[in-house]
Amino acid sequence: MKIKRLYILAFFFSSFVVANAQNDSLNIRSIVNQTLSNSVCYSRLDYLSNSIGGRLSGSPQAEQAVVWAQKTLKEDGFDSVWLQEVIVPHWVRGAKEEGFFTGKSGKTKVAICALGGSVGTNQKFISGNVVEVKDFNQLKNLGEAIIKGKIVFFNRPMDPLFIETFDAYSHAVDQRSMGAIEAAKLGAIAVLVRSMGSNVDKNPHTGAMRYLDGVSKIPACAISTYDAELLSGKLKQDNQTTFSLKMSCETLPDVISYNVVAQILGSEKPDEIILVGGHLDSWDNGDGSHDDGAGCVQSMEVLHTFKTLGIRPKRTIRCVLFMNEENGLKGGLKYAELAKANFEKHIAAIETDAGGFTPRKFSTTASDSSLFAMQKWEPLLKQYGIEEISQGHGGADIGPLKNQGVVLIGFGPDSQRYFDIHHTAVDTFDKVSKRELELGAANIAALVWLISEYGL
Amino acid sequence: MKIKRLYILAFFFSSFVVANAQNDSLNIRSIVNQTLSNSVCYSRLDYLSNSIGGRLSGSPQAEQAVVWAQKTLKEDGFDSVWLQEVIVPHWVRGAKEEGFFTGKSGKTKVAICALGGSVGTNQKFISGNVVEVKDFNQLKNLGEAIIKGKIVFFNRPMDPLFIETFDAYSHAVDQRSMGAIEAAKLGAIAVLVRSMGSNVDKNPHTGAMRYLDGVSKIPACAISTYDAELLSGKLKQDNQTTFSLKMSCETLPDVISYNVVAQILGSEKPDEIILVGGHLDSWDNGDGSHDDGAGCVQSMEVLHTFKTLGIRPKRTIRCVLFMNEENGLKGGLKYAELAKANFEKHIAAIETDAGGFTPRKFSTTASDSSLFAMQKWEPLLKQYGIEEISQGHGGADIGPLKNQGVVLIGFGPDSQRYFDIHHTAVDTFDKVSKRELELGAANIAALVWLISEYGL
Repeated sequence: MKIKRLYILAFFFSSFVVANAQNDSLNIRSIVNQTLSNSVCYSRLDYLSNSIGGRLSGSPQAEQAVVWAQKTLKEDGFDSVWLQEVIVPHWVRGAKEEGFFTGKSGKTKVAICALGGSVGTNQKFISGNVVEVKDFNQLKNLGEAIIKGKIVFFNRPMDPLFIETFDAYSHAVDQRSMGAIEAAKLGAIAVLVRSMGSNVDKNPHTGAMRYLDGVSKIPACAISTYDAELLSGKLKQDNQTTFSLKMSCETLPDVISYNVVAQILGSEKPDEIILVGGHLDSWDNGDGSHDDGAGCVQSMEVLHTFKTLGIRPKRTIRCVLFMNEENGLKGGLKYAELAKANFEKHIAAIETDAGGFTPRKFSTTASDSSLFAMQKWEPLLKQYGIEEISQGHGGADIGPLKNQGVVLIGFGPDSQRYFDIHHTAVDTFDKVSKRELELGAANIAALVWLISEYGL
Repeated sequence: MKIKRLYILAFFFSSFVVANAQNDSLNIRSIVNQTLSNSVCYSRLDYLSNSIGGRLSGSPQAEQAVVWAQKTLKEDGFDSVWLQEVIVPHWVRGAKEEGFFTGKSGKTKVAICALGGSVGTNQKFISGNVVEVKDFNQLKNLGEAIIKGKIVFFNRPMDPLFIETFDAYSHAVDQRSMGAIEAAKLGAIAVLVRSMGSNVDKNPHTGAMRYLDGVSKIPACAISTYDAELLSGKLKQDNQTTFSLKMSCETLPDVISYNVVAQILGSEKPDEIILVGGHLDSWDNGDGSHDDGAGCVQSMEVLHTFKTLGIRPKRTIRCVLFMNEENGLKGGLKYAELAKANFEKHIAAIETDAGGFTPRKFSTTASDSSLFAMQKWEPLLKQYGIEEISQGHGGADIGPLKNQGVVLIGFGPDSQRYFDIHHTAVDTFDKVSKRELELGAANIAALVWLISEYGL
């Protein structure tokens, strides 16, 4: 009798599970259909990219983006929309940089691009002999005797053998972020950095660099991978080749800016927040379409989809457009500070900041048990392009929430094209595929819905 | 005792399996490394696209492509390189097409593009009232009374709810391929076809269309998705809107062209052939970089990789660059005819003709048992982007080999961007990502190597 009862229970339970899976599948299909046929993310990105443009922290465009995002989210009619004040650095590039090298075969102009945060060259060219190095070890081995008074040229390419280009990036980016410090310690007068690009092309890539208190601040700029190869070749023929650069960049006083936040209140557990976000600032040389206009409009689209379909989520869904990811992370830090001060309970934070490319995976900092729970959803997402949910990185802006025990999740689109455009003048709207952008938004919305229904 | 022996056997067998898997993994890694760091496919595509350009069957560019491919494959030093003569149709577009519509609000010029194979309009504009339809049923329901003397405008969009854009394409392409026949049966004087594009943009897409003996041949052209929306809107306001088109296209006498073939002979089973190929012809409006320059240089790269790494395959590997996929399939038909006449034994034919985008899957016509054998290789390819090997389509050029019992395999890159550029003036080299192209070539080479080692 008991066994029979168990069978009946098991039957009802398994029917329930099957019915639930079918229900989940239908709900996700309706989210995907809405996004692929009626979404607004692509037209919003068009506006953000083409009518506002590159929006470095402190720039008029960054402020326009804040105003636009707040207005747009209010028009969407979410439960609440607000700003979080953030003090951000205000670095400006100034007049277009100029660079050239001179050797036995004459003078060759090359496009250079100041690294974000670099000092300028006082309205004049500075020149010096060039010493090429692959890494900091080689630099240190050469020592002050060789380096002093010279321009250090960091020329270690991104390793093409990494399949994920972000892995190649993270193994090369120390040259850009720390190169000026390490070279200045040995008396260098400036640094040139080979751009963080996957291929050989003529676009210099900017990006953040740092100084260290007590070490002199020397100018730092990127040259394209093509010009890096060219210069390296010249140096092999003529090690007396000099490089000259002129940059007008400078750091102005900090300014006030904002994170933009919108939310739909949960119907059953309104105190449990699921964050989905990207960063509203971008570099100034392109229009920041992939980095991270795409992530912003995808995050906005998640809430827009719920609203349009009339889905009232069980848990609160919050869209956060962070300010100042590129050169300070002040928005992410402020957000986490306020979340802590206000005793907010975030159960998950999802960041989309790896380009608006075709969706492939989610990576997460979740514990094994939460990860296992999420991996059970893989079959629901697979048909829309998500191959796996696996352990990995969340995102820079949501990073500061980790100390508060929040599960961080990074949206992982295909990475092969990203470092052709990242931080360059060709990170522009025409490089975004409407369908790729929408499919990304759809998968993120589906994951948000699942977390909102079932928790983690 | 017997049981102990069995254990020992099982132990050795499992060690053997593990060692083999490790060995396979290392071999594939070396194939991938070679392709990502030293391949020539991208620079070859640059030449094919930018120095030769669009290469419709019968054009001087198609002949240049044959000469270039044969020369290049010979320089690679494979065991043999030869041409297969193919008689191909010779359709020419002539002077740039002109089109406009006229209604209450005046005259609006639109870009049109003759469909491949269409008759022209005898050096003059032809004009008529426009009847918009979604499909052949609607057309037939309207009947001859409505259609006679009119221009039929087929305006059924590709359905965005298909995740694979090829599925959306196959559900819409009857308008382009058969529209002129169905409309002419009812007395239409011409057809306009909404372009087979995933999004709304201004590029008309060409592509093959057919006539039927006994049904009059009427001119057929594509208009862009943007103009299709525009014209549809105008027709709602003013159903007396007329369309005018002028096209100089014509079909000239057939000409002789060639498939280009190269092979590396197998060391153990030279009579068992593994074909890898794409098609050398392309439409004439772009430079055919994705369709199918990418597939050609990837197929060439497979053999180049084996040669460079000094891998002597167990089975024969043959690269085939087919002529005339776009408007006749004469190359594919001739190849199959010769294969049969020469009693050749193809164990597999792989086609790469879905764009040079980031790799995602292989699809195959294989029986369940062969499919199961291939699916055991999925873990070896997953890290390089292949999510699955599954039942599905092979490819147009290799299609005629199916009757000979050959397992057909289609390389499946991500499809989201493909129908933004397919058969348009923007199918150009700058739309190809070097890394995506190379990763595709690497995965195809890895699969070829596995089939060559283990058969199917």
